[in-house]
Amino acid sequence: MTDYLPSYVEGSWWTPLGEAQGSIAGTDVRDASTGEIVTRVSTVGLDLAAALEHARTVGQASLGALTFHQRAVLLKQFALALTERKDELYALSARTGATKTDSWVDIDGGIGVLFSYSGKGRRELPNSTVHVDGPVEPLSKDGSFLGRHVYTTLPGVAVQINAFNFPVWGSLEKLAPAFLAGMPTLVKPATPTGYLAEAMVRILVESGLLPAGSLQLVSGSVPTLFDHLRLGDIVGFTGSASTAESLKAHPAVQTGGVRFTAETDSINASVLGTDAVAGTPEFDAYVRQLVTEMTTKAGQKCTAIRRAIVPTETADAVIEAVRARIAEKTVLGDPRAEGVTMGPLASLAQRDEVLRQVTVLQDAGGRLVVGSTETPEVRLADGTTGAAVDGAFVSPVLLRFDDRRAEAVHSVEAFGPVASLLTYDTTAEAAALVGRGGGSLVTSIATHDPVQAVDLATRIAPFNGRMLLLDRDDARSSTGHGSPLPNLVHGGPGRAGGGEELGGIRAVLHHMQRTAVQGSPQMLTALTGIWHAGATARSEGRHPFRKSLAELRIGDQIVSASREVTLADIETFAQFTGDTFYAHMDEDAAAANPFFPGRVAHGYLLVSWAAGLFVDPEPGPVLANYGLENLRFLTPVSPGDEIRVELTAKQITPRETDEYGEVRWDAVIRNQADETVATYDVLTLVSKEPAPAAVPV
Amino acid sequence: MTDYLPSYVEGSWWTPLGEAQGSIAGTDVRDASTGEIVTRVSTVGLDLAAALEHARTVGQASLGALTFHQRAVLLKQFALALTERKDELYALSARTGATKTDSWVDIDGGIGVLFSYSGKGRRELPNSTVHVDGPVEPLSKDGSFLGRHVYTTLPGVAVQINAFNFPVWGSLEKLAPAFLAGMPTLVKPATPTGYLAEAMVRILVESGLLPAGSLQLVSGSVPTLFDHLRLGDIVGFTGSASTAESLKAHPAVQTGGVRFTAETDSINASVLGTDAVAGTPEFDAYVRQLVTEMTTKAGQKCTAIRRAIVPTETADAVIEAVRARIAEKTVLGDPRAEGVTMGPLASLAQRDEVLRQVTVLQDAGGRLVVGSTETPEVRLADGTTGAAVDGAFVSPVLLRFDDRRAEAVHSVEAFGPVASLLTYDTTAEAAALVGRGGGSLVTSIATHDPVQAVDLATRIAPFNGRMLLLDRDDARSSTGHGSPLPNLVHGGPGRAGGGEELGGIRAVLHHMQRTAVQGSPQMLTALTGIWHAGATARSEGRHPFRKSLAELRIGDQIVSASREVTLADIETFAQFTGDTFYAHMDEDAAAANPFFPGRVAHGYLLVSWAAGLFVDPEPGPVLANYGLENLRFLTPVSPGDEIRVELTAKQITPRETDEYGEVRWDAVIRNQADETVATYDVLTLVSKEPAPAAVPV
Repeated sequence: MTDYLPSYVEGSWWTPLGEAQGSIAGTDVRDASTGEIVTRVSTVGLDLAAALEHARTVGQASLGALTFHQRAVLLKQFALALTERKDELYALSARTGATKTDSWVDIDGGIGVLFSYSGKGRRELPNSTVHVDGPVEPLSKDGSFLGRHVYTTLPGVAVQINAFNFPVWGSLEKLAPAFLAGMPTLVKPATPTGYLAEAMVRILVESGLLPAGSLQLVSGSVPTLFDHLRLGDIVGFTGSASTAESLKAHPAVQTGGVRFTAETDSINASVLGTDAVAGTPEFDAYVRQLVTEMTTKAGQKCTAIRRAIVPTETADAVIEAVRARIAEKTVLGDPRAEGVTMGPLASLAQRDEVLRQVTVLQDAGGRLVVGSTETPEVRLADGTTGAAVDGAFVSPVLLRFDDRRAEAVHSVEAFGPVASLLTYDTTAEAAALVGRGGGSLVTSIATHDPVQAVDLATRIAPFNGRMLLLDRDDARSSTGHGSPLPNLVHGGPGRAGGGEELGGIRAVLHHMQRTAVQGSPQMLTALTGIWHAGATARSEGRHPFRKSLAELRIGDQIVSASREVTLADIETFAQFTGDTFYAHMDEDAAAANPFFPGRVAHGYLLVSWAAGLFVDPEPGPVLANYGLENLRFLTPVSPGDEIRVELTAKQITPRETDEYGEVRWDAVIRNQADETVATYDVLTLVSKEPAPAAVPV
Repeated sequence: MTDYLPSYVEGSWWTPLGEAQGSIAGTDVRDASTGEIVTRVSTVGLDLAAALEHARTVGQASLGALTFHQRAVLLKQFALALTERKDELYALSARTGATKTDSWVDIDGGIGVLFSYSGKGRRELPNSTVHVDGPVEPLSKDGSFLGRHVYTTLPGVAVQINAFNFPVWGSLEKLAPAFLAGMPTLVKPATPTGYLAEAMVRILVESGLLPAGSLQLVSGSVPTLFDHLRLGDIVGFTGSASTAESLKAHPAVQTGGVRFTAETDSINASVLGTDAVAGTPEFDAYVRQLVTEMTTKAGQKCTAIRRAIVPTETADAVIEAVRARIAEKTVLGDPRAEGVTMGPLASLAQRDEVLRQVTVLQDAGGRLVVGSTETPEVRLADGTTGAAVDGAFVSPVLLRFDDRRAEAVHSVEAFGPVASLLTYDTTAEAAALVGRGGGSLVTSIATHDPVQAVDLATRIAPFNGRMLLLDRDDARSSTGHGSPLPNLVHGGPGRAGGGEELGGIRAVLHHMQRTAVQGSPQMLTALTGIWHAGATARSEGRHPFRKSLAELRIGDQIVSASREVTLADIETFAQFTGDTFYAHMDEDAAAANPFFPGRVAHGYLLVSWAAGLFVDPEPGPVLANYGLENLRFLTPVSPGDEIRVELTAKQITPRETDEYGEVRWDAVIRNQADETVATYDVLTLVSKEPAPAAVPV
């Protein structure tokens, strides 16, 4: 590692110019356990404005040339490149104070986000650059004027301002959705652990996989950052609520239209149900989870449990169980020493700050019931035990508040292995206590009583970004109170920052603009790449099932011949399928039904016949019908009626990594009076190449 | 009308205490055409904090006791009550300067929003109080831990701060989604036209339909409003960008977690395509629309066209056509006079402000090419023509900027019948000009060339909340550049406020909190009211098709017998349906297909048989199968395989105004090896009452 930690801007590695002369003031970054200097950071001389403009021009162009699926494939390749060299990351991670388990959350957790977004991007987004939101909205009776909502990529740069606790995961959980959306990213890691983020970015750069301008890294402080931001940019901030407030107040956000998403440490709660008395699986799961949240990452998690809210009568048992479990399970020390389960805080400054906040909590009425604030004896790297004076160690601490309304317990955060215990007597009281936190990232509820769970959950949901319902059924499979997951939203109202990250494709859309579009079917088809009823359709020439993905165009159509449905057909179908529902079999009973004029054809008969009417039977590019969506039966079909079907290629989604893709067909069944009998989408897999059908898999 | 305009707070009408004595300073409100005093407003002595708390307690309780559908039914009743007395509203509306057409947009447009939300609420939301977002997210391999997203009602009050231009529509377009979401509303209308909003609220109050605390009105200024707001409240603001900025900076929004949605007047654009030369239908439609936007509501619309961006070579023709159309179509005057097509601005203060901004535009290089800023001769209420010195009249004005990059034309708004014309030479230039507005509510594009439309639209979409693609196909049916619609989002990035209103259910969700929930299938079922696979299912006792809506419970299930599929069955089905696709008919060709082991059963055969396996044929509460969703074929079925089906009641949605409701069933087809063959949802209509089936309609 160089003396100065490099930044990666405008496609090159950069270090401060004065470095060789030692003439500039950098910030020292130290090993969390030993206090040794790891590196220094400085941005003196770095042209931040140019870096941002590089993203907006070069980065936007290179990402804009890729489809959602192509970006998704790259995310998977990033994940594989990082996996290959993750030992390097683990080694550095130990220097930040992270145990193996902590590092796993950060490093493998971050890589997992890339895999998750790669999969979701390909499954849930089209293979194009515009995402359509919601159904068609008819705006005129004659069908000539329609509305639709589309998402398009914001034209700027996605700036990450990250917290020190998860330098890898924090960068990747913001990178993945931004990248998928087509927005270039500039990462600004927190100084104490920025060298781990730098190592991660270095692996990606060295992989050669990064599209030009798609990822930049600034190691060091960026006080003028917001002055350079403008409409079309987005900032994703993770850190303290107070920093978020001051950033949000900048004119770029207030009046400049820069999007600002904050995810801040909140005073999260975990509620124990009244049924979950000592000896129940829920009690045990609750205590296990509480201790895990206090000790993992030494409690330096925005999602950690800060308030344990328990029934008055169970409080003593909880305290006793927490004390016992910590004594049994927790080994504090240098993460590089064998057997250590809890490391130091990230820096001495953090340690001092945490101890200061514990004092504030004590002054507000918190009694120390588990642990101590004295400098602990810890296991050193060499395996011996001693006082680590240069390490940022703090013992796990549980405080008990007798006055549950004490202001401090709901607002003061000690960002370390610190939680407070409060008691409640009624569910309404427990809910009110959760709400007093002013908005949280997550609250967990441990109860096996669904009535209690639902009552509490519906009351507290508006104050939470996430809720975990813990009981005997999921205690073993639960991913835990403190773990944000790529497919669930992460963020929360109020004190938690008011933002939303992750949540699968939801976070991708946060990097895009939703726009309502009004126009003719023809224009909406051109804009969205999805055929809209009323736009040009071509039914001449080859049957569309004979066209490969390369040949098929949206709007290619087959209009079938008509076929009469007889009573005998209905009876044959009833007999063959066993579906002898009275509406098909009994004229009087059917006529008494409010929806039928008399005996009618089975809906399944109609879609089966429709398939017979539109299918092209010989081997060809269409490989399989893998599903069907949004089927609605609109007009009943009586014996003597005739049906025909129109099948139109609606959306074509070639797969990036297969020899075929999905084709969605718009199907409309009409009767002899041109009434719409049924509408649905037929989902098929179609080969990229013209026949033969056989594609090896 | 009383001397002081009343407020409606805490369930009562309120007027300032000192009114009788004339001892307090109120604000005079004047007739826009004549300058006559209409009413006075003052909030001296009004307990705003108590009104807000009334909403949070009484209003939340009464709305919280209703389901989405029950609220939706009330919205329709509100619409009917207003329709019945809309003449009263039209009469008052004329005093604000609105012509009949202007009033129709405001009054009938507002009522239309209520109808629209009533329909959407019942079609697109469940008949309960929690809305589920997105699919189930499996979080463990064994299915015991799932994730889901739910929306719950924000626990506070929805405060409206409205603009003067659409006192009825502006109130109702915010009320409808808030009410549907379960949030009580407090309306703060703009002073110049607040008497029309008051009349609308009065009709609703007198209808007796309003749930207690669900709607309050404050007539007059509320300078301390934000001091009383807190987490769980939401503010919907419509008005100027500068006011929005100052409100947004309040600590309640910055740090208190109060949601703030702004929809501000923006410098909207309308682009004429290069193909749309004089004589084309697009040219004509463009000019018609431009003049409409300049004159409707005297140009006092946040969505009005401020910048006409036209090809350099077509500019003169556009100016000429605009001049001609205004001369031919526009009659300026008192809206109560026969034949008047354009009224005054809302107040003399507005008139002075508009003329001041026109001067700023002129100083920045805008040449007056249509109209004049001199006091116009207008048609007076008595039909005579004269100078209306006490009326707020301004003639329609078009300015031309030779320097398209002049800062003012992209940032200065004259909120009246004023637009500026700019020219462009390339599509990229046109797009850049649109973007220079810094974010708009709407941009329209008039072209019949899909390539040009898509090129321009994809470039400008991130800068717009709405885009209208205008051409010969939709010119006649288009609802127009300036008309927000209830089913499309209204709002825009940057200068347009950065907020979103309307857009159907999207706006309802802005009044709710999205929360990720993790838990066992059992707990998620209890919380959402939707059965999740893995939760308790009951297959004993009566067939669920024999249960009415009142008797049926989610989790009621039928597990069918098994049935073997033979080659003969496949051939019979192929012959009967005509679906002789080779995968069913030709062993070798089928085996060569990458997805099939050899000949397989038709997917439609499987779902048809499944219906035969689960159906209960006799008349009963199940009235019809009206559709099917999310069908996926997962494992092919070969001759000799056996299939069985599990059908489980998943979601029950009784209708409020019918004798039946929807039941969604979870269907899973499995084979003899317990592999999942297909999954889908079956949609049925089920009677509320136990048999007989016959329900008169």
